[in-house]
Amino acid sequence: MPTMTAAQQRAQAKADYDAFLAQCPSRQLLDRISDKWVTLILAALGSDGPRPGAGCEGGPRSMRYSELSRRLAGVSQKMLTQTLRSLERDGLLTRTVTPTVPVTVSYQLTGLGLSLQHLMSSIKEWAEANMDEVLANRESYDAPGG
Amino acid sequence: MPTMTAAQQRAQAKADYDAFLAQCPSRQLLDRISDKWVTLILAALGSDGPRPGAGCEGGPRSMRYSELSRRLAGVSQKMLTQTLRSLERDGLLTRTVTPTVPVTVSYQLTGLGLSLQHLMSSIKEWAEANMDEVLANRESYDAPGG
Repeated sequence: MPTMTAAQQRAQAKADYDAFLAQCPSRQLLDRISDKWVTLILAALGSDGPRPGAGCEGGPRSMRYSELSRRLAGVSQKMLTQTLRSLERDGLLTRTVTPTVPVTVSYQLTGLGLSLQHLMSSIKEWAEANMDEVLANRESYDAPGG
Repeated sequence: MPTMTAAQQRAQAKADYDAFLAQCPSRQLLDRISDKWVTLILAALGSDGPRPGAGCEGGPRSMRYSELSRRLAGVSQKMLTQTLRSLERDGLLTRTVTPTVPVTVSYQLTGLGLSLQHLMSSIKEWAEANMDEVLANRESYDAPGG
C-alpha cells in the first residue's frame, strides 16, 4: 500500500473518528480542548506569533510560567500547571527548562498547537464581539413574560 | 452621534471586552461556550444547514429533543436540558413547542448560533483529524524516559 500524505492521513482520521460517539477518543479530546483555560493559554502563546500565510521565521513566542500566570488573570497555580502538562502530553506545546538560578521554565506552541490556536482565536474573538448581543438576549429571556 | 453599523458595533465590543480579564463578562461567555456538549449540540443543529455563502432559503434545520438526545450519545437528560436552556437564554437557539399529543419540542439555531457553529465545527473537525497524532504524542510522553 502506498504511503499516505499527511493530508490524506488527516482525511482518513476524520472518517475514522466521530466525536458524536461517546466511546470515540475524539470525544474525549474535544472535551479536553473545550476548556476556557486551554483557549486562553493558546491565545496567550499564539499572540504576536506568526499569522497563517506569513513567513515562519521566528516561530511562535515563548512565555515563562510566571508570565502566563499573570496573563491569565484568576487562574490557580494548580489549574495552570495541570492544563499545561496535559497540553504538553498531547503535543500542543513544548516545555523548556533552562538551568538558571532559579530555573526558568518556558512554554511554546508546537505546529499542532498553532493549528488549533488559529481556530480557537476566532472563538475567543466571537465571545468578545457578540457579548453585547448575548447580554441583551439574556435580559429579554429573564424579563417577566419574556 | 451617528448610529453604528452592526460591524462597527462588533468591532467596538471586541475593543471593550477582553476574555483574559477574570472580571470581564466575555470570560464567562467563553467558559459557557467552551463545553463539549455546546459544541456537539451546535454541530448537530448546524449539520445539513446552509453553508456560509450559500443561499439562505430553508434556514437551519430543526431537531426534536428526542433526536438530539439520540445524536449526542451518552448525554444525560439533565445535562442536555440545562445546556439547551442556557443556549436559548443566550439567544443561540430557539425552542418551539408544537401542541401535538404529546407536545413536540424542537430546537433551531438562530443567526447568532449559526455564526458560532461555523467556528466550532472547525474545532470538532480538528479533534477528529488530529486524533492519531495526539494519541502518538501521549504514548511517547508516557513512555519511560519520554
